[in-house]
Amino acid sequence: MNKRKLAGTIRETDIESTVLLKGWVQKRRDLGGLIFIDLRDRSGIVQIVFNPDFSRDALEIAESVRSEYVLEVKGKVVKRDESTVNPSMETGNIEVFASEVSVLNKAKNPPFLIQDESDVAEDLRLKYRYMDLRRSPLQHTFKMRHQITQSVRNFLNEDGYLEMETPILTKSTPEGARDYLVPSRVHPGEFYALPQSPQLFKQLIMMGGFEKYYQIARCFRDEDLRADRQPEFTQIDIETSFLSSDEIMEMTEKMMERVMKEVKGIDLELPLQRMPYKEAMERYGSDKPDTRFGLELIHVSDIVVNSTFKVFQGALESGGTVCLLNVEGQANNYSRKDIDKLTDFVKVYGAKGLAWLKVEGDDLKGPIAKFITDEEKAGLMERANAKDGDLLLFGADKTSIVYDSLGALRLKLGKDLNLIDESKFNFLWVTDWPLLEYDESLGRYTAAHHPFTMPVEEDVEKLSTDPGSVRAIAYDLVLNGYELGGGSLRIYKREQQDKMFEVLGFSKEQAEEQFGFLLDALEYGAPPHGGIALGLDRIVMLLAGRSNLRDTILFPKTASASDLLTNAPDEVSDAQLTELAIQVNSKYE
Amino acid sequence: MNKRKLAGTIRETDIESTVLLKGWVQKRRDLGGLIFIDLRDRSGIVQIVFNPDFSRDALEIAESVRSEYVLEVKGKVVKRDESTVNPSMETGNIEVFASEVSVLNKAKNPPFLIQDESDVAEDLRLKYRYMDLRRSPLQHTFKMRHQITQSVRNFLNEDGYLEMETPILTKSTPEGARDYLVPSRVHPGEFYALPQSPQLFKQLIMMGGFEKYYQIARCFRDEDLRADRQPEFTQIDIETSFLSSDEIMEMTEKMMERVMKEVKGIDLELPLQRMPYKEAMERYGSDKPDTRFGLELIHVSDIVVNSTFKVFQGALESGGTVCLLNVEGQANNYSRKDIDKLTDFVKVYGAKGLAWLKVEGDDLKGPIAKFITDEEKAGLMERANAKDGDLLLFGADKTSIVYDSLGALRLKLGKDLNLIDESKFNFLWVTDWPLLEYDESLGRYTAAHHPFTMPVEEDVEKLSTDPGSVRAIAYDLVLNGYELGGGSLRIYKREQQDKMFEVLGFSKEQAEEQFGFLLDALEYGAPPHGGIALGLDRIVMLLAGRSNLRDTILFPKTASASDLLTNAPDEVSDAQLTELAIQVNSKYE
Repeated sequence: MNKRKLAGTIRETDIESTVLLKGWVQKRRDLGGLIFIDLRDRSGIVQIVFNPDFSRDALEIAESVRSEYVLEVKGKVVKRDESTVNPSMETGNIEVFASEVSVLNKAKNPPFLIQDESDVAEDLRLKYRYMDLRRSPLQHTFKMRHQITQSVRNFLNEDGYLEMETPILTKSTPEGARDYLVPSRVHPGEFYALPQSPQLFKQLIMMGGFEKYYQIARCFRDEDLRADRQPEFTQIDIETSFLSSDEIMEMTEKMMERVMKEVKGIDLELPLQRMPYKEAMERYGSDKPDTRFGLELIHVSDIVVNSTFKVFQGALESGGTVCLLNVEGQANNYSRKDIDKLTDFVKVYGAKGLAWLKVEGDDLKGPIAKFITDEEKAGLMERANAKDGDLLLFGADKTSIVYDSLGALRLKLGKDLNLIDESKFNFLWVTDWPLLEYDESLGRYTAAHHPFTMPVEEDVEKLSTDPGSVRAIAYDLVLNGYELGGGSLRIYKREQQDKMFEVLGFSKEQAEEQFGFLLDALEYGAPPHGGIALGLDRIVMLLAGRSNLRDTILFPKTASASDLLTNAPDEVSDAQLTELAIQVNSKYE
Repeated sequence: MNKRKLAGTIRETDIESTVLLKGWVQKRRDLGGLIFIDLRDRSGIVQIVFNPDFSRDALEIAESVRSEYVLEVKGKVVKRDESTVNPSMETGNIEVFASEVSVLNKAKNPPFLIQDESDVAEDLRLKYRYMDLRRSPLQHTFKMRHQITQSVRNFLNEDGYLEMETPILTKSTPEGARDYLVPSRVHPGEFYALPQSPQLFKQLIMMGGFEKYYQIARCFRDEDLRADRQPEFTQIDIETSFLSSDEIMEMTEKMMERVMKEVKGIDLELPLQRMPYKEAMERYGSDKPDTRFGLELIHVSDIVVNSTFKVFQGALESGGTVCLLNVEGQANNYSRKDIDKLTDFVKVYGAKGLAWLKVEGDDLKGPIAKFITDEEKAGLMERANAKDGDLLLFGADKTSIVYDSLGALRLKLGKDLNLIDESKFNFLWVTDWPLLEYDESLGRYTAAHHPFTMPVEEDVEKLSTDPGSVRAIAYDLVLNGYELGGGSLRIYKREQQDKMFEVLGFSKEQAEEQFGFLLDALEYGAPPHGGIALGLDRIVMLLAGRSNLRDTILFPKTASASDLLTNAPDEVSDAQLTELAIQVNSKYE
């Protein structure tokens, strides 16, 4: 009897057998001369009983034991009394009578309790991350992260993909987000950059003839951190040669089908819904719509085109849009004050206000009702399919502001009004993205995705005449309103890549200097290729039902990119800097 | 017929069927009005025939085609004439008569030929890495790398290990090799470090209660590069709680058994041989002995203890050692000049010379024979099991120099004399390593492995009195004379870790400042734990039969840590440096 048994796996079939357990003290209770210890290991928890009639020595040691002590326990599995059975524990029918116990390691009084739900300040949890990780929801999340990763790998392996590693010490490229830089000791004054993604390398792998590549790849972005961003994150990175965008989407769907089945036991219905970018924006005011509920944007510009209401007039005259949300049956639940709060909410998104009307019988009432003609009212009612008691909320502004503000308001109302079925996993492809977007501050077009994305064939000729209208062969995978990631076919001909850099305002020299190796590679037999990258951290977050990315990353950083556990980043010695031929600017020394 | 067929998979069973192929032009030959093209894809090569009787259009296009063009070909599979069958090709029985062909992409004249063996300068191959990767030996190596990785994962997954990701942006620790540093924009004047290994994080994962962790982990060392070092490398990183060192070694053996079976079809005999460090040094002059051949070091200090030969005398009087190698049957094959070359060879390892004797009948002959008594001769002959025609080569110096020089000489002779069976895979555990080694330049002990290694229980009391003699619970896995990696049990009690830092000359403040988080963690219920890390790149190199690590890394760096393909590292903009609050020292600007 030297083989260890896992605490959470003991069942009634083990009754009468002797078991060896190793784990942590979850809880200790003294009761009527006995000591009860919940012993926890990676598999779960079992109750140990220390009884003087069974072993006085063990009881004595148990008396010294505190929470989070590490114990080795030998004992006999017994059936619990009917009255003490705990149906909420998997091991709740049995308990272990300890015959021997030894303390493998002690523990100071923990900084917080190791329990499922914790309202401890996150900073403290991050400083003692190794304690926080012992909590069951985090144990569960990282087991699921493992499962998801293996499920993805198994699918791709079976489909002939090779897992390949691209460099972390790479070259800085000025397009995109800010790079993390690494000074070189061997080449003073020069720097490596940590990759924002393996984009160029995975394309080079295709040019290397491997045809099917994947990697669970670490990526780095030195961005101003928002709640759901981390300086380093992980993506499921895939690239393949000779496939069409449809074939890549199909492959990705099957991969997600496998993950959902193996990890969540859910049968995903394929093919997944596809929606052009334009439709997503028009219907949901978002390029990553949450399709678990309705409350879509209703376009009414044509109905109010001659409106005397200044806000509508102004919006339409300057080429904007008027839309409304029909918040069904909520007219009486939203007071003026409540609507004022919604107005403040949409202002964050650039809206100047939030016009509204309530449906009373067949009529529309509210402060702006007087500006609306009967004909317009009838038109609005019909278009919005409005009934008595509905609340209509209007957006009237530049189209982008209407979409942003009503899109955000839609999500807020969806949550506030419990319109969302949280058990649903609604996947959605958003396709036909714009290739370029105009950057006012730069006074030129920039790549909407990245400069290597292939334009839709029939739009190519508009690259010179009307770049903004050129669509990309690109696709994003959206789940419940989150972008899981996206991909595209890539440009594989030199002339087209040259043209793209020209449209993006690169001089020939700049393009050569920064991407010469790729341009070269396009001339030596580059195959047609494309791929996709999906955010693993976000997939884990959504599938494990966590509310932030930090819970999906083992040792995450704070919003100021600090690791509170190890205290990174930190000062380093002058000798280290001298070797690297750099110095810290004097004001920060 | 729109589904693509892989070129290398076409067989006689496909005869008469029409196939769609996509791939690269490996070779084109024109012969008697026909064009023959070897078309290559990731699966292999097939011969395409362009025949005017079959399709004149296809033939015309084929005329424009050059090496490395990317083609899409439709054609009929036909049996080859008996006379043109190519038994060295897997598809050598058949060929494809092209009915349609289109050029997917062109290729300029390649900088070098895409063929199995290449004597092209490595710099050129690295600059055009994507061309080099198309060569079949490299395709094969990266497929094997994939297989090895998946084999390791499958084994560990089945054994209950969780794959977990540790941070790349970490804290700099002054022990060990030089860190790569990453300046922080958010915390000016502070730096992250890229991890030399996930050592501390994997220990913290154990303190987080996960018990079984692994990761195919990228690691970074800013060392002066030797031929077989890379700034970034990958290790199979494993840590586990509650297991003994024997259990960890057993698990590792089974993992390697699985890899050898699945990747090489070789049955590994378990348990693997184990050898204490001391024995390895004494017998092979190496801590990573190549046991595929004999030629062991023969210790003869006791025999020549009273020698009048000054070299032996001097070595022994200063506490050194005299050893010999018996190079059997080679006396007549090594001239004085040959032996002079061997002398030059051992001088690199600090030896002052290389004394030698040749066995002639029952006698020993050679320049030093006159210093050797008959009794000594008899003793040497017997100890070395020497026979007529053997060559005896002596090392006499400080013990470490004798081991280094004869150990290296042994390997050289093993190769020169073809003593090594290259088909063998000799795995070996080297155990019972010293915990500490004395660093003359620092005037103190340093950790032989790292400061978290657990000492052997019975040696602990010598930590204060005789630190150099304390053994570690550590084990290295050696294959054919290469260290694949190693591991140890770790210290899991605060007092012992404090003691260890004290022995290593850390003040309490230094220990706290650098490793406070770990010391803290040891006090909150740290379980007994240990693990191992194996170099994936090296495993791939040995199993794929490559001669250098660069062939096992997709985009490797040169000996000066440069990526010749992308030109990293490179200069960056002043704006980037200003944001990071650093500047390059003026002499390098």
